[in-house]
Amino acid sequence: MNTPAPVETPVERLLALLAPDMDGVARLIRDRMASQHAPRIPEVTAHLVGAGGKRLRPLLTLAAARLCGYDGSDHLKLAATVEFIHTATLLHDDVVDESARRRGRPTANLLWDNKSSVLVGDYLFARAFQLMVETGNLRVLDILSNAAAVIAEGEVLQLTAAANLDTDETVYLQVIRGKTAALFSAATEAGAVVAGADDVVALALHDYGDALGIAFQIADDLLDYRGTDDRLGKNVGDDFRERKMSLPVIRALAGADEAERDFWQRVIGKGDQRDGDLATAMAIMTRHGSLDSTRDTALEHAARARAALGPLPVGPIRSQLADLADFVVARLV
Amino acid sequence: MNTPAPVETPVERLLALLAPDMDGVARLIRDRMASQHAPRIPEVTAHLVGAGGKRLRPLLTLAAARLCGYDGSDHLKLAATVEFIHTATLLHDDVVDESARRRGRPTANLLWDNKSSVLVGDYLFARAFQLMVETGNLRVLDILSNAAAVIAEGEVLQLTAAANLDTDETVYLQVIRGKTAALFSAATEAGAVVAGADDVVALALHDYGDALGIAFQIADDLLDYRGTDDRLGKNVGDDFRERKMSLPVIRALAGADEAERDFWQRVIGKGDQRDGDLATAMAIMTRHGSLDSTRDTALEHAARARAALGPLPVGPIRSQLADLADFVVARLV
Repeated sequence: MNTPAPVETPVERLLALLAPDMDGVARLIRDRMASQHAPRIPEVTAHLVGAGGKRLRPLLTLAAARLCGYDGSDHLKLAATVEFIHTATLLHDDVVDESARRRGRPTANLLWDNKSSVLVGDYLFARAFQLMVETGNLRVLDILSNAAAVIAEGEVLQLTAAANLDTDETVYLQVIRGKTAALFSAATEAGAVVAGADDVVALALHDYGDALGIAFQIADDLLDYRGTDDRLGKNVGDDFRERKMSLPVIRALAGADEAERDFWQRVIGKGDQRDGDLATAMAIMTRHGSLDSTRDTALEHAARARAALGPLPVGPIRSQLADLADFVVARLV
Repeated sequence: MNTPAPVETPVERLLALLAPDMDGVARLIRDRMASQHAPRIPEVTAHLVGAGGKRLRPLLTLAAARLCGYDGSDHLKLAATVEFIHTATLLHDDVVDESARRRGRPTANLLWDNKSSVLVGDYLFARAFQLMVETGNLRVLDILSNAAAVIAEGEVLQLTAAANLDTDETVYLQVIRGKTAALFSAATEAGAVVAGADDVVALALHDYGDALGIAFQIADDLLDYRGTDDRLGKNVGDDFRERKMSLPVIRALAGADEAERDFWQRVIGKGDQRDGDLATAMAIMTRHGSLDSTRDTALEHAARARAALGPLPVGPIRSQLADLADFVVARLV
């Protein structure tokens, strides 16, 4: 009588394939997030880590390690590491974003939240490094510490690229690598390396994570203009209002005539935005085909992710990783 | 004719003894702080790292390594690592402190500064981890990643201990270990370990750094009430106004009668501070001898630092480290 609910997405199917490993990661996260001395730490992180979320990044590490035949337990530590780095990044993004959103609210609250977010984020970064050091694997340490630097550099770059009409696609790629792809590729490559995979396999899994992350982020940036309901906590036009130089804007600017350039200069460059500007921006983008070409670029990266899996052992994990590449852009087609 | 200027402090004498090493560290800091892609990073850090400052922490690592007979170059990387961690901490403290100080200023500026401080701090943390991973020394990685966790935990603890009259000396010690002593002790211990020192020597240098850092921080907390001009950028009463539970307050509270307890509850617990309250606080502390007993505790830790040097080779570096222990509390006597 109890027919199981249909398992629908590749993420859910990977979660099912790797359920015992994911339980181990969840335990590790709970144990290492705790602080005997500072109960505020689990308070602050509970809603981020405890809520579960998709936990896509640790899943990538586990999948990569198992796909490479790993039968040890260090991959659990690395999976928890990438989730801690991700959560720390979210906390620090909070400081930046929430501040802007809450200008009307009392300063004391805002500052208290900022303090907690910064310091608890730092704590999670430190815990992440402790966890990865415990594996004693220097190549893995190299991969993850490099990723941390690319992430931070990308965030700073995003800050300075915002509202700057000279931002080109090269800078945009660096920003989204920092924002998303660097941790995806480190997650998959670290899983391969801890499993003792050879260089070809480790590189293939790195490239898979890189392409997957880029496809994912371009899709997200496109949906900020095309709109959908499945992007948690974000609304159509958020990037526009924050004057972000995302790919649809960069491409619309590349083909802009003088009047359009003046428009972008006013709304993005100067931040002088009025009623109807978002609709105008979308009409300009549609006219130049920059929404369609952005979608095509996302699909190309998804195809690159799928192709990168070529050298890897055929089986259920590889199949789901391939489907995952299509899944992250499925919202676009 | 050119008589050299008298070299006065143990820090200056250590800088002279280790001048070529310190030049190497300065070069490494300059090279690794640079970001090809995000010029904002050196802009933000220039006034912190470029100004030179005392660079006490990298000096401790270099001194420890040389004292243990090290003749390699990995100690330069570790010295740069501890300076990066320290600078990142300062940047993140800025977010917390400057925000509070600048309430009257335009929000946009404040947010921009906050964003840069958080993200550039994260970049420096990541660069610090890259540098230490390059040494390939897992014991050193263990020491420094643990220190990073203690630092972050101590900062969170300080946040929750502020304005909390139940804060005791145990919590206070944890807070100042996080704030100061954990990085001092990691700096000296890492120097010993990279030099291949045996466990007794490594522990001795750990204990030296721990005691030195605690003496230094207690002295600083005491001077916040006793006052002096040589504390850069801080004014008498800052901790009082920020409702910090530092050692002089904790000890005054321990012996407080009911009226005094009500006073502390109002000014620290509730933050209801009026003209003359700081003077009243200092009078109460003087009456209970809590300023004198705080000074004695600082002197005890300085003596512990000096004593910890027992197992180490006699010579100019050990002499200067011993004098440094007295120097950090010399402002108090």
